[in-house]
Amino acid sequence: MPKLEIPRKAVYRLSLYYRALQRLKANAVETVSSAALSKAAGVKPTQLRKDLAYFGQLGTRGLGYSVSHLTQTLMEALGTARLQPVVLIGAGHLGSALVRYRGFEKEGFEIVAAFDADPERARDVALGLPVLPMASLREFVREKLVKLAILTVPATVAQEVCNELVECGIQAILNFAPTILQVPDGVVVNNVDLAIELENLSYFIR
Amino acid sequence: MPKLEIPRKAVYRLSLYYRALQRLKANAVETVSSAALSKAAGVKPTQLRKDLAYFGQLGTRGLGYSVSHLTQTLMEALGTARLQPVVLIGAGHLGSALVRYRGFEKEGFEIVAAFDADPERARDVALGLPVLPMASLREFVREKLVKLAILTVPATVAQEVCNELVECGIQAILNFAPTILQVPDGVVVNNVDLAIELENLSYFIR
Repeated sequence: MPKLEIPRKAVYRLSLYYRALQRLKANAVETVSSAALSKAAGVKPTQLRKDLAYFGQLGTRGLGYSVSHLTQTLMEALGTARLQPVVLIGAGHLGSALVRYRGFEKEGFEIVAAFDADPERARDVALGLPVLPMASLREFVREKLVKLAILTVPATVAQEVCNELVECGIQAILNFAPTILQVPDGVVVNNVDLAIELENLSYFIR
Repeated sequence: MPKLEIPRKAVYRLSLYYRALQRLKANAVETVSSAALSKAAGVKPTQLRKDLAYFGQLGTRGLGYSVSHLTQTLMEALGTARLQPVVLIGAGHLGSALVRYRGFEKEGFEIVAAFDADPERARDVALGLPVLPMASLREFVREKLVKLAILTVPATVAQEVCNELVECGIQAILNFAPTILQVPDGVVVNNVDLAIELENLSYFIR
């Protein structure tokens, strides 16, 4: 399916709908109204109808959406219908933890290898998957058709490593380094900056 | 200083200005125009002027902002002028990694203790700080005046633990559990859902 041009924020909401549908499915619900689904996802009904309209006529007036059909449509759109291979760059504390954290697989993502400038130095050898030298990144990414990378390197080297990832054909980067990465058109970056999240919370403390 | 009622997103931008100012300071820059600061922060100049106007008249027309004065104002606002104590709940893989990741301290946050339903089970004993039973949470939080918590427990128990945190007087929660927490007015939650970030990226892969 060619990707629809829909806003970044709408894509985040697709994930919320998808999770709400999974809960409905677990409760053996077969059809759901847009009102009920929007409530389960914590999104306004008008917003939900607008977001799902990108995918054409999915619901039936008066009946609502088929839970299984809508689930399938969203999985296809989000690219999680198959297990998606991911490489992780930077096997320090945070990187090693993300490798050991097995929560991604049930969501459709498999970290297939970790890379580090100094693979010997990897903080935890019990990662259950190889820590490879950066020199073998390009071949690995091409051979395994990896498009997605998690970046957990220090901020000082993040742009340089990012450039390497882009050259290797990586199209999407989840960046934990506290720096703004410059990427060419066609490559997307999502940033997770834990210090900024804490600061934001800290503002609201009395 | 009483907290100003400013939008959540504006508070995120304060963090960006603060980081840009730190870089300017490191380069011995003493004053900065709003145009230059907005560029360094990756924010539009009109947005920056609007955000900083919440704090009164900070700049001088034609001269710009004093880097050190504005840094101090933002640190005070963000509550990072002093080291802020944080408790972490859930010493599993992700929780242990966040404890070992020392990157928060230079940003003004110190994880002072970790708590777990079964402290004996803590995945890594080399955390360098105590893993305490949940039963001692209340006393600890009150005694140390902790207002901020990081929640890294499974989604199934997240709401229950969240309720305990709120009862103990926690005012702000950084939630890694993939679930939407219900909290009373006066308590803020920021969510970090790594699976949703990956899904969002996955949408854009060709």
